[in-house]
Amino acid sequence: MALIVQKYGGTSVGTVERINAVADKVAGFRDKGDDLVVVVSAMSGETNRLTALAEEIMEFPTPREMDVLLSTGEQVTIALLTMALEQRGCRARSFTGGQVRVLTDNTHTKARIREIDSTRIHEQLQQGNVVVVAGFQGVSEEGHITTLGRGGSDTTAVALAAALKADECQIYTDVKGVYTTDPRVVAAARLLTSITFEEMLELASLGAKVLQIRAVEFAGKYKVPLRVLSSFEEGPGTLISLEEDTDMETPAIAGIAFERDEAKLTVAGVPDVPGIAYEVIGPVSEAGIEVDVIVQNAAADGTNDITFTVKRSEGERAKTIIDAVATKLKAASVVLDKKVGKVSLVGVGMRSHAGIAAKMFKVLADESINIQLITTSEIRISIVIEEKYLELAVRALHSAFDLDDPDYEKQSS
Amino acid sequence: MALIVQKYGGTSVGTVERINAVADKVAGFRDKGDDLVVVVSAMSGETNRLTALAEEIMEFPTPREMDVLLSTGEQVTIALLTMALEQRGCRARSFTGGQVRVLTDNTHTKARIREIDSTRIHEQLQQGNVVVVAGFQGVSEEGHITTLGRGGSDTTAVALAAALKADECQIYTDVKGVYTTDPRVVAAARLLTSITFEEMLELASLGAKVLQIRAVEFAGKYKVPLRVLSSFEEGPGTLISLEEDTDMETPAIAGIAFERDEAKLTVAGVPDVPGIAYEVIGPVSEAGIEVDVIVQNAAADGTNDITFTVKRSEGERAKTIIDAVATKLKAASVVLDKKVGKVSLVGVGMRSHAGIAAKMFKVLADESINIQLITTSEIRISIVIEEKYLELAVRALHSAFDLDDPDYEKQSS
Repeated sequence: MALIVQKYGGTSVGTVERINAVADKVAGFRDKGDDLVVVVSAMSGETNRLTALAEEIMEFPTPREMDVLLSTGEQVTIALLTMALEQRGCRARSFTGGQVRVLTDNTHTKARIREIDSTRIHEQLQQGNVVVVAGFQGVSEEGHITTLGRGGSDTTAVALAAALKADECQIYTDVKGVYTTDPRVVAAARLLTSITFEEMLELASLGAKVLQIRAVEFAGKYKVPLRVLSSFEEGPGTLISLEEDTDMETPAIAGIAFERDEAKLTVAGVPDVPGIAYEVIGPVSEAGIEVDVIVQNAAADGTNDITFTVKRSEGERAKTIIDAVATKLKAASVVLDKKVGKVSLVGVGMRSHAGIAAKMFKVLADESINIQLITTSEIRISIVIEEKYLELAVRALHSAFDLDDPDYEKQSS
Repeated sequence: MALIVQKYGGTSVGTVERINAVADKVAGFRDKGDDLVVVVSAMSGETNRLTALAEEIMEFPTPREMDVLLSTGEQVTIALLTMALEQRGCRARSFTGGQVRVLTDNTHTKARIREIDSTRIHEQLQQGNVVVVAGFQGVSEEGHITTLGRGGSDTTAVALAAALKADECQIYTDVKGVYTTDPRVVAAARLLTSITFEEMLELASLGAKVLQIRAVEFAGKYKVPLRVLSSFEEGPGTLISLEEDTDMETPAIAGIAFERDEAKLTVAGVPDVPGIAYEVIGPVSEAGIEVDVIVQNAAADGTNDITFTVKRSEGERAKTIIDAVATKLKAASVVLDKKVGKVSLVGVGMRSHAGIAAKMFKVLADESINIQLITTSEIRISIVIEEKYLELAVRALHSAFDLDDPDYEKQSS
């Protein structure tokens, strides 16, 4: 008999019909004898409805009151799902974040979980109840309602799984799991049966928007086995595990992430002196613009080129800031390229497989794709290229690194 | 500087526009220096929306979960009203029933308040905040969310006023206060400046649906001065006070209540023995039918007639039950009259004014209205008559007992 924490997002509980479908699923697990804690989000659309009401009243709603308001969304869902379970003869009890003491700091609208008192949940489980918990919300030391910000329900689920020492934390979503790359771009993309936390972190931050990165970090830190699966289709999903799969030869690459809509800024001919990177990047960050890739390359002549990428929509604003910096630093030139994209190969197997980078560059050369920037981490290589070649590059790499689904041709024939 | 508890019902906070209007009102009071605790209901329509969702899931929703669900309605309002106050520069904080420890028993969907911990509210008031509290809801000893049932927000307001020893509890509603009778029936109905708790209880239970009877009882018990006034129009409203107004001659009658849509059942010729009333009325109550007036009149021949009234919609069902009882008791007959109504004169002045009943009967006789039943309490006389004479009777009595608004003719001319 396992203890499982399951999380169902807003789309999975978006209508009464879908809540009933989730209840069928949960009741089925319970019938098999597992102990279940179910974390739910607000019904899709509800958070937007409440936010719109608040914004009718004030342009920048008081964060404390925003939390009081938004936390009602999940509270509605826990009540409805619990009713649906009881309707199926499956004994259940609902709890708000405050009721199960999801203790957070005081940072309203983006609070951090400090600890969870698992006593109450364990009591309920011992009485044979399914415990339905409102995601996304907690309570501060002083008893104020807090919310965890974007993707908070994933974090609630992982934190509960950690506190309860659950056997597995299952995140139900509208995709079947984590793919080797975006199936909308590469039809042969393969569903991964497992992936390591490190790989998932690199993939999540690079654009595979399946799981909130915060929840993955949390799960990694507290060693909670995490599984992503579909609310709507049967299947084992993808297990995100602590350990590299040592039973079989680890493939070099777990997946390929990519990012469209990037802009690249190059400041050429700035002095090669300490602190120069900060002088260039600092003002951009301070303006609230998120900087992605940063590459610096000192030339032999004592000058320096610094290149970085930002979201395309921020490109012009970043250029205005950099133009001012360049004047001050007497830089040779500032060049903005608004049509670039980024491709990243991710895999813990890189550590033991030599020549991944070389192979990547060869594949792109064979397709006549020019590489503009290269950055690497221990388990990732990212390149920036002209955006029009983005899909071609991803497909070519996916195939060259043996990621294509072996069943794909059968499926499509 | 007074401490005032104000309560605004669902209609008063039914839209963002109305919430803003309430905020203007509250901020105005605060500017005058009063300490304010504001109790609010769910936005009108919200409770119905949530109930409909629950009923889509199960025919008889689990009471515990219904409370978790419905309590979100007031929680939305407290957040929005607090934002509206802060937007006006009026410092405010919202609290759910649980957060200010409105401690109740465990009877979900109709819990009773046991006590309120006023510490937290006093702290907030001392910090200069308006305290906005969710009405209708509380928390049980075990930490479960409870709701107080119909009119629960009025009860919350009165209970808070009692716990905080407030100077006044003001119930804002969509009428200007308590009238001598229903102004829709008697155009000359007069707004009462004050009324006693006893009179209000008799009027409330008899059909003047301004205040929930439970809240009035509560206010009477804990000696909380209660005032009913309009959210939408200026005016002093009606003060419900502990003491009879001794400064001026107390009028004999405070008001006239009436009830349409009643049905009358008479069981004639049952034995005149102890327990007979229970044998007749018992089965009706057990079937969940609310019995209003009960009159028993033992004849000299050792038999007995028992007459009672129920809501008209329950008339046929009550008759079926009574037919069975009558057969068992060998009663002479059962008669159902589905077209009766009830009129009640209420006033503490009756205690000292003789001849009120006689005058009432004469007024009706003058209008050729036949009285079918008479019941009395210390401060009330009720009669049951044929329904078609109901409005005529109320108007004639209203005028005869000097209740007509002296300004009425001026207004209408």
